[in-house]
Amino acid sequence: MSVLVVGSVAYDGIETPAGKVDKTLGGSATHISLASSYLADEVRLLATVGKDFAQNDIDKFKNRGINLDGFKVDENERTFFWRGRYHDDLNTRDTLETQLNVIEKFDPVVPESIKGSRYICLGNLDPISQKKVLDQVTAPQLSIGDTMNFWIEGMNKELLETIAKLDVLIVNDEEARQLTEKNNLVEAAEVIGKMGPSIVIIKKGEHGAMLFTDDGFFTAPGLPLREIKDPTGAGDSFLGGFSGWLSKTDDHSFDNLKRAVIYGSVMASFCVEDFGPQRFENISPYAISDRYDEFRKIASVPASS
Amino acid sequence: MSVLVVGSVAYDGIETPAGKVDKTLGGSATHISLASSYLADEVRLLATVGKDFAQNDIDKFKNRGINLDGFKVDENERTFFWRGRYHDDLNTRDTLETQLNVIEKFDPVVPESIKGSRYICLGNLDPISQKKVLDQVTAPQLSIGDTMNFWIEGMNKELLETIAKLDVLIVNDEEARQLTEKNNLVEAAEVIGKMGPSIVIIKKGEHGAMLFTDDGFFTAPGLPLREIKDPTGAGDSFLGGFSGWLSKTDDHSFDNLKRAVIYGSVMASFCVEDFGPQRFENISPYAISDRYDEFRKIASVPASS
Repeated sequence: MSVLVVGSVAYDGIETPAGKVDKTLGGSATHISLASSYLADEVRLLATVGKDFAQNDIDKFKNRGINLDGFKVDENERTFFWRGRYHDDLNTRDTLETQLNVIEKFDPVVPESIKGSRYICLGNLDPISQKKVLDQVTAPQLSIGDTMNFWIEGMNKELLETIAKLDVLIVNDEEARQLTEKNNLVEAAEVIGKMGPSIVIIKKGEHGAMLFTDDGFFTAPGLPLREIKDPTGAGDSFLGGFSGWLSKTDDHSFDNLKRAVIYGSVMASFCVEDFGPQRFENISPYAISDRYDEFRKIASVPASS
Repeated sequence: MSVLVVGSVAYDGIETPAGKVDKTLGGSATHISLASSYLADEVRLLATVGKDFAQNDIDKFKNRGINLDGFKVDENERTFFWRGRYHDDLNTRDTLETQLNVIEKFDPVVPESIKGSRYICLGNLDPISQKKVLDQVTAPQLSIGDTMNFWIEGMNKELLETIAKLDVLIVNDEEARQLTEKNNLVEAAEVIGKMGPSIVIIKKGEHGAMLFTDDGFFTAPGLPLREIKDPTGAGDSFLGGFSGWLSKTDDHSFDNLKRAVIYGSVMASFCVEDFGPQRFENISPYAISDRYDEFRKIASVPASS
């Protein structure tokens, strides 16, 4: 089935202990759609960029077969730009520059041709725009959303209205705590469940991710990597892998949700191996299934005797 | 087989968001030996307390069948005392008071009757005392050691000499980074492996634990608990469960090391359910095997299709 991906397509400037790039393709919808494209039947990208957006970068989506009916170039604006520097531990970063540009007036209009998308994946974006998309799609099967501290603090009421309409909320541990004012993540997941979503995923960065559903609890390991070049987009790539696998299989059983969480982790683990979404230009299907098996292997607990 | 446990037996004053106790039995060897006693054939405790140590607390070891040949009461000293307060997140704490007392002059002498112990479990203690124990035992099969930031900073040379003699080093992520000056935990484990131990375990608190051996890598999940009353001793309880299972089975295969890591996690998860080592007064064998299965279940990754 098809996945509609909404979010930012941006340019990033990134500094990490492994190096520096002045300008690379970035943004939540970029990582989600590219990662999802390795698993989903069809990925549809809804995003707007500015006049400075390079054809070469548009080609990166085209090369992955991504439907661009909802992709717009605003000739009066420039593309959203973010620049940041990661600390040595790679878990924290400083934002050095943010130019909202085209994203400031972003008003998502879903074209007729993709209104019937069945899986809706809302990347990090203001909650009003996220809700506008949900109001326009005509046959959603599963809506999956992400958010961040900025919206939890600044647009809490609007965010709660959007979350109420989601089937799946994917947040990291800090966001879960901030959103629910609960330190304990089991309690935080319960509170989020009461806000609307029947499936709650809490990402824990290098420590993996936790899946909470009415059918049970699952914890996915983090894959210890010898080198992480750039953590930017790892969380979005998780959304991509998760939504891609679920839309492809269209099976919401607990076991298949677990698989989707592992595919999310797999795509996130590829993402961090290079700067920006560079790693997504070419991953073989074998590499993806090998990585899945690696996750399975490192977490496998033998029977007690 | 038998486990010799060396470390501190102390009194603790503990404040957590869940409550406060002015004085409870504590110390590394306390938690290790009590946790280990649920799995090992025989646990032998080598520790010294002061004249203020209550008979009632000695009975807690006796009730668990722990061999006290190496347990000494120094009539000229008082028992080691620590008082601390945990922050709301339970991951960080402030030490409010430390009275070294009897521990300051602790010079471990292993009595003849327990010199032949096969599994040696060195709880957190100064590295010179740890090494003295290793020098006295006559037939060690596996030596397992723990340490902490205090010794990494203050007695680095002595610590490295002790680590060189260990088969298994168990540290938390921060200690691993500090000890090796590597941020990346895969690299840190490799560096520790070169220091001596062929088995390296890095504990990550609520996020579980990682096992590095020549035969492979394994990651144990953290069990999300709705309520954590007191994290004190969780790491020591991990050592207890780990050493207890290994000594009972005397099987160092990779699969059995994984089991030992899960039993360590099981005992740590019991520990935090109550203040001090209170939870270890009575746990049924069924509760332990149920908890093991729970760890197995939450981490089980289905085949990819």
